[in-house]
Amino acid sequence: MSQRLEKQLALLMELDQLKSVLRRTRVKSADGRLENSAEHSWHVALMAVLFEEHANEPVDLSRVIKMLLLHDIVEIDAGDTFIYDAVASLEQEQKELECAQRLFGMLPEEQGEELFAIWREFEAAKSADAKYAKALDRIIPMLLNHHNQGQSWKEHGVHKEQVLKVNRRIEDGSQALWDKAQQIVENAVSEGWLKAD
Amino acid sequence: MSQRLEKQLALLMELDQLKSVLRRTRVKSADGRLENSAEHSWHVALMAVLFEEHANEPVDLSRVIKMLLLHDIVEIDAGDTFIYDAVASLEQEQKELECAQRLFGMLPEEQGEELFAIWREFEAAKSADAKYAKALDRIIPMLLNHHNQGQSWKEHGVHKEQVLKVNRRIEDGSQALWDKAQQIVENAVSEGWLKAD
Repeated sequence: MSQRLEKQLALLMELDQLKSVLRRTRVKSADGRLENSAEHSWHVALMAVLFEEHANEPVDLSRVIKMLLLHDIVEIDAGDTFIYDAVASLEQEQKELECAQRLFGMLPEEQGEELFAIWREFEAAKSADAKYAKALDRIIPMLLNHHNQGQSWKEHGVHKEQVLKVNRRIEDGSQALWDKAQQIVENAVSEGWLKAD
Repeated sequence: MSQRLEKQLALLMELDQLKSVLRRTRVKSADGRLENSAEHSWHVALMAVLFEEHANEPVDLSRVIKMLLLHDIVEIDAGDTFIYDAVASLEQEQKELECAQRLFGMLPEEQGEELFAIWREFEAAKSADAKYAKALDRIIPMLLNHHNQGQSWKEHGVHKEQVLKVNRRIEDGSQALWDKAQQIVENAVSEGWLKAD
Protein backbone atom coordinates (compact mmCIF):
# COMPACT_ATOMS: atom_id res chain seq x y z
CA MET A 1 0.00 0.00 0.00
CA SER A 2 2.67 2.45 1.08
CA GLN A 3 4.77 1.77 -2.03
CA ARG A 4 1.71 2.39 -4.23
CA LEU A 5 1.04 5.64 -2.38
CA GLU A 6 4.60 6.85 -2.88
CA LYS A 7 4.41 6.19 -6.64
CA GLN A 8 1.13 8.09 -6.88
CA LEU A 9 2.53 10.99 -4.87
CA ALA A 10 5.59 11.17 -7.12
CA LEU A 11 3.38 11.47 -10.21
CA LEU A 12 1.14 14.04 -8.52
CA MET A 13 4.12 16.30 -7.83
CA GLU A 14 5.50 15.73 -11.35
CA LEU A 15 2.16 16.90 -12.77
CA ASP A 16 2.59 20.25 -11.00
CA GLN A 17 4.73 21.22 -14.02
CA LEU A 18 1.64 21.45 -16.23
CA LYS A 19 0.98 24.79 -14.48
CA SER A 20 4.03 26.16 -16.31
CA VAL A 21 3.07 25.08 -19.84
CA LEU A 22 1.69 28.12 -21.65
CA ARG A 23 -0.97 28.12 -24.37
CA ARG A 24 -1.70 30.72 -27.09
CA THR A 25 -4.97 31.90 -25.59
CA ARG A 26 -5.12 34.55 -22.89
CA VAL A 27 -7.26 34.54 -19.77
CA LYS A 28 -10.20 36.90 -20.11
CA SER A 29 -9.66 38.65 -16.80
CA ALA A 30 -7.80 41.91 -16.29
CA ASP A 31 -4.14 40.94 -16.58
CA GLY A 32 -4.65 39.17 -19.93
CA ARG A 33 -1.68 36.84 -19.44
CA LEU A 34 -1.34 33.61 -21.43
CA GLU A 35 -3.38 30.71 -20.12
CA ASN A 36 -1.55 27.64 -18.86
CA SER A 37 -2.54 24.05 -19.60
CA ALA A 38 -3.43 23.17 -15.99
CA GLU A 39 -6.04 25.91 -15.58
CA HIS A 40 -7.31 25.16 -19.11
CA SER A 41 -7.77 21.52 -18.05
CA TRP A 42 -9.83 22.62 -15.03
CA HIS A 43 -11.98 24.89 -17.19
CA VAL A 44 -12.70 22.26 -19.83
CA ALA A 45 -13.37 19.49 -17.25
CA LEU A 46 -15.92 21.73 -15.56
CA MET A 47 -17.36 22.51 -18.98
CA ALA A 48 -18.01 18.76 -19.39
CA VAL A 49 -20.17 18.88 -16.24
CA LEU A 50 -22.11 21.95 -17.34
CA PHE A 51 -22.75 20.94 -20.98
CA GLU A 52 -23.44 17.21 -20.70
CA GLU A 53 -26.98 17.62 -22.09
CA HIS A 54 -25.52 18.93 -25.36
CA ALA A 55 -23.52 15.78 -26.17
CA ASN A 56 -24.79 14.08 -29.34
CA GLU A 57 -24.87 10.68 -27.64
CA PRO A 58 -25.21 9.67 -23.97
CA VAL A 59 -21.79 9.82 -22.28
CA ASP A 60 -20.20 8.46 -19.12
CA LEU A 61 -19.35 11.78 -17.50
CA SER A 62 -16.82 10.29 -15.12
CA ARG A 63 -14.77 8.94 -18.05
CA VAL A 64 -15.11 12.21 -20.00
CA ILE A 65 -13.78 14.16 -17.04
CA LYS A 66 -10.87 11.77 -16.55
CA MET A 67 -9.95 12.27 -20.21
CA LEU A 68 -10.04 16.03 -19.86
CA LEU A 69 -8.06 16.12 -16.60
CA LEU A 70 -5.39 13.95 -18.23
CA HIS A 71 -5.46 15.07 -21.86
CA ASP A 72 -2.72 17.70 -21.71
CA ILE A 73 -0.30 16.21 -19.16
CA VAL A 74 1.93 15.02 -22.01
CA GLU A 75 2.73 18.68 -22.68
CA ILE A 76 5.00 18.54 -19.63
CA ASP A 77 7.70 17.07 -21.90
CA ALA A 78 6.27 17.91 -25.33
CA GLY A 79 5.08 21.50 -24.80
CA ASP A 80 1.89 22.97 -26.22
CA THR A 81 1.50 23.09 -29.99
CA PHE A 82 -0.59 25.77 -31.62
CA ILE A 83 -3.49 23.96 -33.21
CA TYR A 84 -3.12 25.88 -36.48
CA ASP A 85 0.54 24.86 -36.88
CA ALA A 86 0.18 21.68 -39.00
CA VAL A 87 3.89 20.78 -39.26
CA ALA A 88 4.53 21.02 -35.54
CA SER A 89 1.40 18.96 -34.87
CA LEU A 90 2.87 15.98 -36.73
CA GLU A 91 6.14 15.98 -34.78
CA GLN A 92 4.21 16.53 -31.59
CA GLU A 93 2.47 13.18 -31.72
CA GLN A 94 5.58 11.09 -31.08
CA LYS A 95 6.82 13.38 -28.30
CA GLU A 96 3.45 13.20 -26.57
CA LEU A 97 3.32 9.42 -26.78
CA GLU A 98 6.77 9.17 -25.18
CA CYS A 99 5.73 11.51 -22.39
CA ALA A 100 2.54 9.52 -21.78
CA GLN A 101 4.63 6.35 -21.43
CA ARG A 102 6.96 8.07 -18.99
CA LEU A 103 4.24 9.60 -16.81
CA PHE A 104 1.79 6.70 -16.69
CA GLY A 105 4.79 4.42 -16.16
CA MET A 106 5.39 6.13 -12.80
CA LEU A 107 2.16 4.63 -11.42
CA PRO A 108 1.48 1.10 -10.10
CA GLU A 109 1.32 -1.00 -13.27
CA GLU A 110 -2.40 -1.76 -13.61
CA GLN A 111 -3.37 1.80 -12.65
CA GLY A 112 -0.95 3.29 -15.17
CA GLU A 113 -2.27 1.03 -17.92
CA GLU A 114 -5.88 1.95 -17.19
CA LEU A 115 -5.22 5.69 -17.33
CA PHE A 116 -2.95 5.38 -20.37
CA ALA A 117 -5.84 3.59 -22.15
CA ILE A 118 -8.19 6.48 -21.28
CA TRP A 119 -5.65 9.00 -22.59
CA ARG A 120 -5.29 7.02 -25.86
CA GLU A 121 -9.06 6.79 -26.20
CA PHE A 122 -9.26 10.59 -26.03
CA GLU A 123 -6.52 10.93 -28.65
CA ALA A 124 -8.28 8.47 -30.97
CA ALA A 125 -11.53 10.48 -30.70
CA LYS A 126 -13.72 7.56 -31.75
CA SER A 127 -15.86 6.67 -28.71
CA ALA A 128 -18.87 8.78 -27.71
CA ASP A 129 -17.04 9.89 -24.56
CA ALA A 130 -13.93 10.94 -26.49
CA LYS A 131 -15.91 12.74 -29.21
CA TYR A 132 -17.73 14.82 -26.61
CA ALA A 133 -14.48 15.53 -24.72
CA LYS A 134 -12.72 16.58 -27.95
CA ALA A 135 -15.61 18.89 -28.88
CA LEU A 136 -15.22 20.73 -25.56
CA ASP A 137 -11.44 20.95 -25.89
CA ARG A 138 -11.83 22.47 -29.34
CA ILE A 139 -14.56 25.00 -28.61
CA ILE A 140 -13.29 26.42 -25.32
CA PRO A 141 -10.39 28.40 -26.85
CA MET A 142 -12.83 29.68 -29.50
CA LEU A 143 -15.06 30.96 -26.72
CA LEU A 144 -12.15 32.67 -24.98
CA ASN A 145 -11.05 34.20 -28.28
CA HIS A 146 -14.58 35.43 -28.90
CA HIS A 147 -14.59 37.17 -25.50
CA ASN A 148 -11.06 38.53 -26.07
CA GLN A 149 -11.90 40.26 -29.38
CA GLY A 150 -10.21 37.51 -31.37
CA GLN A 151 -6.85 38.00 -29.62
CA SER A 152 -5.14 34.71 -30.46
CA TRP A 153 -6.45 34.63 -34.06
CA LYS A 154 -5.28 38.20 -34.64
CA GLU A 155 -1.86 37.64 -33.02
CA HIS A 156 -1.23 34.64 -35.28
CA GLY A 157 -3.00 35.76 -38.49
CA VAL A 158 -5.42 32.83 -38.58
CA HIS A 159 -7.86 32.32 -41.50
CA LYS A 160 -11.53 31.44 -41.26
CA GLU A 161 -11.05 28.24 -43.27
CA GLN A 162 -8.35 27.01 -40.88
CA VAL A 163 -10.69 27.46 -37.93
CA LEU A 164 -13.56 25.68 -39.66
CA LYS A 165 -11.38 22.81 -40.83
CA VAL A 166 -9.50 22.19 -37.58
CA ASN A 167 -12.58 22.51 -35.41
CA ARG A 168 -15.06 20.63 -37.58
CA ARG A 169 -14.82 17.63 -35.24
CA ILE A 170 -16.80 19.62 -32.68
CA GLU A 171 -19.77 18.45 -34.77
CA ASP A 172 -18.94 14.80 -33.98
CA GLY A 173 -19.37 15.41 -30.27
CA SER A 174 -22.04 18.11 -30.06
CA GLN A 175 -24.21 19.54 -32.81
CA ALA A 176 -25.35 22.35 -30.50
CA LEU A 177 -21.78 23.44 -29.81
CA TRP A 178 -20.83 23.19 -33.49
CA ASP A 179 -23.73 25.53 -34.33
CA LYS A 180 -22.35 27.93 -31.72
CA ALA A 181 -18.81 27.57 -33.08
CA GLN A 182 -19.98 28.53 -36.58
CA GLN A 183 -21.72 31.62 -35.21
CA ILE A 184 -18.51 32.61 -33.46
CA VAL A 185 -16.52 32.23 -36.70
CA GLU A 186 -19.01 34.30 -38.72
CA ASN A 187 -18.94 37.01 -36.10
CA ALA A 188 -15.12 36.98 -35.99
CA VAL A 189 -14.90 37.42 -39.75
CA SER A 190 -17.35 40.33 -39.70
CA GLU A 191 -15.36 41.94 -36.87
CA GLY A 192 -12.11 41.46 -38.80
CA TRP A 193 -10.61 39.16 -36.13
CA LEU A 194 -10.31 36.25 -38.58
CA LYS A 195 -9.09 36.58 -42.16
CA ALA A 196 -11.78 35.68 -44.69
CA ASP A 197 -10.18 33.53 -47.42
CA MET B 1 -32.31 24.53 -25.69
CA SER B 2 -30.60 27.60 -27.05
CA GLN B 3 -31.53 29.68 -24.01
CA ARG B 4 -30.14 26.99 -21.71
CA LEU B 5 -26.94 26.90 -23.73
CA GLU B 6 -26.49 30.67 -23.50
CA LYS B 7 -26.88 30.59 -19.70
CA GLN B 8 -24.33 27.80 -19.41
CA LEU B 9 -21.91 29.67 -21.70
CA ALA B 10 -22.28 32.84 -19.63
CA LEU B 11 -21.35 30.96 -16.45
CA LEU B 12 -18.45 29.20 -18.18
CA MET B 13 -16.93 32.56 -19.17
CA GLU B 14 -17.59 34.03 -15.70
CA LEU B 15 -15.65 31.11 -14.20
CA ASP B 16 -12.56 32.14 -16.21
CA GLN B 17 -11.93 34.62 -13.38
CA LEU B 18 -10.91 31.82 -11.02
CA LYS B 19 -7.62 31.76 -12.95
CA SER B 20 -6.85 35.16 -11.38
CA VAL B 21 -7.50 34.22 -7.73
CA LEU B 22 -4.14 33.65 -6.06
CA ARG B 23 -3.42 31.25 -3.21
CA ARG B 24 -0.56 31.28 -0.65
CA THR B 25 1.22 28.24 -2.03
CA ARG B 26 3.67 28.47 -4.90
CA VAL B 27 3.98 26.17 -7.89
CA LYS B 28 6.92 23.82 -7.56
CA SER B 29 8.33 24.51 -11.00
CA ALA B 30 11.10 26.96 -11.82
CA ASP B 31 9.36 30.35 -11.67
CA GLY B 32 7.94 29.72 -8.19
CA ARG B 33 4.98 32.08 -8.68
CA LEU B 34 1.87 31.86 -6.49
CA GLU B 35 -0.58 29.16 -7.49
CA ASN B 36 -4.06 30.21 -8.65
CA SER B 37 -7.28 28.53 -7.61
CA ALA B 38 -8.15 27.23 -11.10
CA GLU B 39 -4.93 25.25 -11.55
CA HIS B 40 -5.18 24.08 -7.93
CA SER B 41 -8.69 22.79 -8.71
CA TRP B 42 -7.34 20.81 -11.67
CA HIS B 43 -4.54 19.36 -9.56
CA VAL B 44 -6.80 18.26 -6.71
CA ALA B 45 -9.49 16.84 -9.06
CA LEU B 46 -6.85 14.73 -10.77
CA MET B 47 -5.58 13.71 -7.32
CA ALA B 48 -9.07 12.30 -6.64
CA VAL B 49 -8.66 10.01 -9.66
CA LEU B 50 -5.18 8.86 -8.67
CA PHE B 51 -5.83 8.26 -4.94
CA GLU B 52 -9.34 6.75 -4.93
CA GLU B 53 -8.08 3.50 -3.38
CA HIS B 54 -6.96 5.43 -0.30
CA ALA B 55 -10.42 6.75 0.62
CA ASN B 56 -11.62 5.38 3.96
CA GLU B 57 -15.00 4.45 2.50
CA PRO B 58 -16.12 3.64 -1.07
CA VAL B 59 -16.80 6.89 -2.95
CA ASP B 60 -18.65 7.95 -6.09
CA LEU B 61 -15.68 9.36 -7.97
CA SER B 62 -17.82 11.35 -10.37
CA ARG B 63 -19.41 13.27 -7.47
CA VAL B 64 -16.06 13.76 -5.74
CA ILE B 65 -14.60 15.27 -8.89
CA LYS B 66 -17.59 17.58 -9.39
CA MET B 67 -17.11 18.83 -5.82
CA LEU B 68 -13.44 19.51 -6.42
CA LEU B 69 -13.96 21.23 -9.78
CA LEU B 70 -16.57 23.49 -8.14
CA HIS B 71 -15.28 23.91 -4.59
CA ASP B 72 -13.31 27.13 -5.08
CA ILE B 73 -15.43 28.99 -7.64
CA VAL B 74 -16.92 31.11 -4.84
CA GLU B 75 -13.49 32.73 -4.47
CA ILE B 76 -14.31 34.68 -7.62
CA ASP B 77 -16.20 37.15 -5.40
CA ALA B 78 -14.88 36.19 -1.97
CA GLY B 79 -11.16 35.75 -2.67
CA ASP B 80 -8.95 33.06 -1.19
CA THR B 81 -8.57 32.98 2.59
CA PHE B 82 -5.41 31.62 4.15
CA ILE B 83 -6.45 28.51 6.00
CA TYR B 84 -4.49 29.49 9.13
CA ASP B 85 -6.28 32.87 9.42
CA ALA B 86 -9.19 31.97 11.76
CA VAL B 87 -10.86 35.42 11.89
CA ALA B 88 -10.96 35.85 8.12
CA SER B 89 -12.33 32.33 7.76
CA LEU B 90 -15.47 33.24 9.70
CA GLU B 91 -16.27 36.30 7.58
CA GLN B 92 -15.46 34.32 4.49
CA GLU B 93 -18.34 31.91 4.95
CA GLN B 94 -21.08 34.44 4.28
CA LYS B 95 -19.27 35.95 1.27
CA GLU B 96 -18.81 32.51 -0.25
CA LEU B 97 -22.45 31.59 0.22
CA GLU B 98 -23.54 34.79 -1.56
CA CYS B 99 -21.17 34.09 -4.44
CA ALA B 100 -22.45 30.51 -4.73
CA GLN B 101 -26.00 31.83 -5.00
CA ARG B 102 -24.97 34.33 -7.67
CA LEU B 103 -23.00 31.85 -9.79
CA PHE B 104 -25.30 28.83 -9.58
CA GLY B 105 -28.21 31.24 -10.12
CA MET B 106 -26.85 31.95 -13.61
CA LEU B 107 -27.69 28.39 -14.71
CA PRO B 108 -31.04 26.89 -15.76
CA GLU B 109 -32.87 26.48 -12.45
CA GLU B 110 -32.77 22.72 -11.85
CA GLN B 111 -29.17 22.48 -13.00
CA GLY B 112 -28.11 25.33 -10.72
CA GLU B 113 -29.87 23.73 -7.76
CA GLU B 114 -28.22 20.36 -8.34
CA LEU B 115 -24.71 21.81 -8.49
CA PHE B 116 -25.35 24.17 -5.55
CA ALA B 117 -26.36 21.09 -3.51
CA ILE B 118 -23.10 19.37 -4.44
CA TRP B 119 -21.13 22.47 -3.44
CA ARG B 120 -22.94 22.60 -0.08
CA GLU B 121 -22.32 18.91 0.48
CA PHE B 122 -18.59 19.53 0.06
CA GLU B 123 -18.71 22.44 2.50
CA ALA B 124 -20.60 20.34 5.09
CA ALA B 125 -17.95 17.60 4.84
CA LYS B 126 -20.25 14.90 6.20
CA SER B 127 -20.81 12.42 3.35
CA ALA B 128 -18.16 9.87 2.37
CA ASP B 129 -17.66 11.69 -0.95
CA ALA B 130 -17.19 15.06 0.75
CA LYS B 131 -14.87 13.72 3.44
CA TYR B 132 -12.58 12.22 0.80
CA ALA B 133 -12.70 15.40 -1.29
CA LYS B 134 -11.88 17.57 1.76
CA ALA B 135 -8.97 15.31 2.69
CA LEU B 136 -7.43 15.85 -0.76
CA ASP B 137 -8.01 19.61 -0.67
CA ARG B 138 -6.25 19.78 2.70
CA ILE B 139 -3.24 17.61 1.95
CA ILE B 140 -2.33 18.93 -1.49
CA PRO B 141 -0.95 22.30 -0.26
CA MET B 142 0.97 20.38 2.43
CA LEU B 143 2.55 18.27 -0.30
CA LEU B 144 3.49 21.36 -2.32
CA ASN B 145 4.92 22.99 0.81
CA HIS B 146 6.92 19.85 1.53
CA HIS B 147 8.43 19.99 -1.97
CA ASN B 148 9.02 23.76 -1.68
CA GLN B 149 11.07 23.52 1.54
CA GLY B 150 8.13 24.71 3.63
CA GLN B 151 7.78 27.98 1.66
CA SER B 152 4.24 29.00 2.65
CA TRP B 153 4.65 27.94 6.30
CA LYS B 154 7.91 29.88 6.58
CA GLU B 155 6.53 32.98 4.82
CA HIS B 156 3.59 33.12 7.24
CA GLY B 157 5.23 31.85 10.46
CA VAL B 158 2.93 28.87 10.86
CA HIS B 159 3.12 26.60 13.93
CA LYS B 160 3.05 22.81 13.96
CA GLU B 161 -0.06 22.73 16.16
CA GLN B 162 -1.99 24.93 13.69
CA VAL B 163 -1.21 22.55 10.86
CA LEU B 164 -2.20 19.48 12.86
CA LYS B 165 -5.43 21.07 14.10
CA VAL B 166 -6.62 22.55 10.80
CA ASN B 167 -5.75 19.47 8.77
CA ARG B 168 -6.91 16.79 11.20
CA ARG B 169 -10.01 16.25 9.06
CA ILE B 170 -7.77 14.55 6.47
CA GLU B 171 -8.16 11.57 8.81
CA ASP B 172 -11.94 11.52 8.21
CA GLY B 173 -11.44 10.99 4.49
CA SER B 174 -8.26 8.96 4.26
CA GLN B 175 -6.23 7.34 7.02
CA ALA B 176 -3.39 6.66 4.59
CA LEU B 177 -3.14 10.34 3.64
CA TRP B 178 -3.37 11.45 7.26
CA ASP B 179 -0.43 9.17 8.10
CA LYS B 180 1.47 10.86 5.27
CA ALA B 181 0.43 14.34 6.47
CA GLN B 182 1.80 13.64 9.94
CA GLN B 183 5.12 12.49 8.47
CA ILE B 184 5.29 15.73 6.49
CA VAL B 185 4.67 17.79 9.64
CA GLU B 186 7.33 15.96 11.64
CA ASN B 187 9.81 16.43 8.85
CA ALA B 188 8.94 20.14 8.54
CA VAL B 189 9.53 20.69 12.25
CA SER B 190 12.89 18.94 12.13
CA GLU B 191 13.87 21.03 9.09
CA GLY B 192 12.81 24.23 10.89
CA TRP B 193 10.08 25.00 8.28
CA LEU B 194 7.32 24.84 10.91
CA LYS B 195 7.58 26.34 14.39
CA ALA B 196 7.42 23.69 17.12
CA ASP B 197 5.14 24.99 19.91
